[in-house]
Amino acid sequence: SSTVTLQGETEKEKNKEEEEEKKVQNNVNTTADSEKEKGNIVSYWGVPPSKVANKDGTDWKWTCFRPWETYQADLSIDLNKHHVPITFLDKLAYWTVKSLRWPTDLFFQRRYGCRAMMLETVAAVPGMVGGMLLHCKSLRRFEHSGGWIKALLEEAENERMHLMTFMEVANPRWYERALVFTVQGVFFNAYFLGYMISPKFAHRVVGYLEEEAIHSYTEFLKELDKGNIENVPAPAIAIDYWQLPAGSNLRDVVMVVRADEAHHRDVNHFASDIHYQGRELRESPAPVGYH
Amino acid sequence: SSTVTLQGETEKEKNKEEEEEKKVQNNVNTTADSEKEKGNIVSYWGVPPSKVANKDGTDWKWTCFRPWETYQADLSIDLNKHHVPITFLDKLAYWTVKSLRWPTDLFFQRRYGCRAMMLETVAAVPGMVGGMLLHCKSLRRFEHSGGWIKALLEEAENERMHLMTFMEVANPRWYERALVFTVQGVFFNAYFLGYMISPKFAHRVVGYLEEEAIHSYTEFLKELDKGNIENVPAPAIAIDYWQLPAGSNLRDVVMVVRADEAHHRDVNHFASDIHYQGRELRESPAPVGYH
Ligand SMILES: [Fe+2]
Ligand SMILES: [Fe+2]
Ligand SMILES: [Fe+2]
Ligand SMILES: [Fe+2]
Repeated sequence: SSTVTLQGETEKEKNKEEEEEKKVQNNVNTTADSEKEKGNIVSYWGVPPSKVANKDGTDWKWTCFRPWETYQADLSIDLNKHHVPITFLDKLAYWTVKSLRWPTDLFFQRRYGCRAMMLETVAAVPGMVGGMLLHCKSLRRFEHSGGWIKALLEEAENERMHLMTFMEVANPRWYERALVFTVQGVFFNAYFLGYMISPKFAHRVVGYLEEEAIHSYTEFLKELDKGNIENVPAPAIAIDYWQLPAGSNLRDVVMVVRADEAHHRDVNHFASDIHYQGRELRESPAPVGYH
Repeated sequence: SSTVTLQGETEKEKNKEEEEEKKVQNNVNTTADSEKEKGNIVSYWGVPPSKVANKDGTDWKWTCFRPWETYQADLSIDLNKHHVPITFLDKLAYWTVKSLRWPTDLFFQRRYGCRAMMLETVAAVPGMVGGMLLHCKSLRRFEHSGGWIKALLEEAENERMHLMTFMEVANPRWYERALVFTVQGVFFNAYFLGYMISPKFAHRVVGYLEEEAIHSYTEFLKELDKGNIENVPAPAIAIDYWQLPAGSNLRDVVMVVRADEAHHRDVNHFASDIHYQGRELRESPAPVGYH
């Protein structure tokens, strides 16, 4: 049966290749020829790979993000804002986050590059879970989202880009990979449940997590300035994502990442505050594109 | 305790309002004043509502999508493409979808407006589940996504916009709402599990579901042309989302929605084909912005 499959697939591919040939002749804008050399699957099912170019006309080299998703970080954001916990739920959120800091500090000590990489694998979860739950709710209730689905999904994508960046300067060891597996399994389910029970609490927790993130990136900067961590050149992916000038270094990257975290802090405290007012998120338009 | 909360919140709001006043004086670009009249929460946590304008300078009226997410549908797409099932798994996917059509046809008969509305609540699930699972995988494995997370999430958002559109022309009755609740609960979990076990199979099923969607929108068009369904003016949300000319009607909307489904069909059959080649999605760049 698997032989039949392969033959079937091969024949279909031939047909596709013929179709493609026609397209290239008709001057359709595809990268088909260059991709073909690399042996990738192209124009399968009539979907030509999108040709994305830089401003100067050269090929865009990333597939995990595109030029229209890049931006310049707003470094003027207030890094010291803090939501003073008043209610019981806020205090619970605050102390949950604070109690998580102890084992984290103990585990990573001053290895801030490694710490950043590991924590970003966790940071990208809440936005995705929240966005997904709001999406399903919007469908079930036939309701508009107020832009919150998009805002939370954008937060998740932004956090994933933080991870893609720190991956370039730190390398996860096998036991760190195993730890990420476990932590994701636990945290994904905990946040999923938590968000279903109390989005007010869930967003508050993320708000406080982001406050801690700002703190640890500030410590990272101090170590860089002291020379305890080498200020290596910025990874290429970071330069393209945050539109950084050529010759930027790790310090510049940590600066823009920290600004991102401050934005996430505001968005999540804001979301929690809306719930505190007894309203639903969709009633107050989400800050879209607020990095 | 809840009184304390409310007082705390009210005091905080006053402070925020003062802060806001300052911002307005400083000519910061906010919609604060107009929002305040409506009694909405504004500039909370220093997040000013984003001011979004149309090309002609008038205010953008939607919060669930923004001008940069609108597009003109590509109506030239081939509506008759069909993936001939050869392997056992493909046949299983094909007959799963075909067997789901019987009860659906029986339930809706020729109420295509209602049918479209109800089915779009289901159609928006696979993209979200697939995107989320790929996101988590990317984090766990420290791997780039190849753009597939974004592509699948975009599909989910596109389907949700289909729902927001059909909601304007059909009204769900209470038992239909109850049905959506149940179906989403079952389908979300089934697709989640299915995608974890075999993304190859999951994407193939969606490919076939989209083929059926094209068919039922074609039937919808026939009923409109026969005059059995009234060709009412297009909802405002549809005109803005698909950049339709003023004076468009329901028929024009069904045309662009059908084109969207054809694009989803291609993307999902493509994704399944990549898995059939024994590759992972991230190895072949996703067709981003392929509506
Ligand atoms: Fe981050
Ligand atoms: Fe963050
Ligand atoms: Fe749809
Ligand atoms: Fe679809």
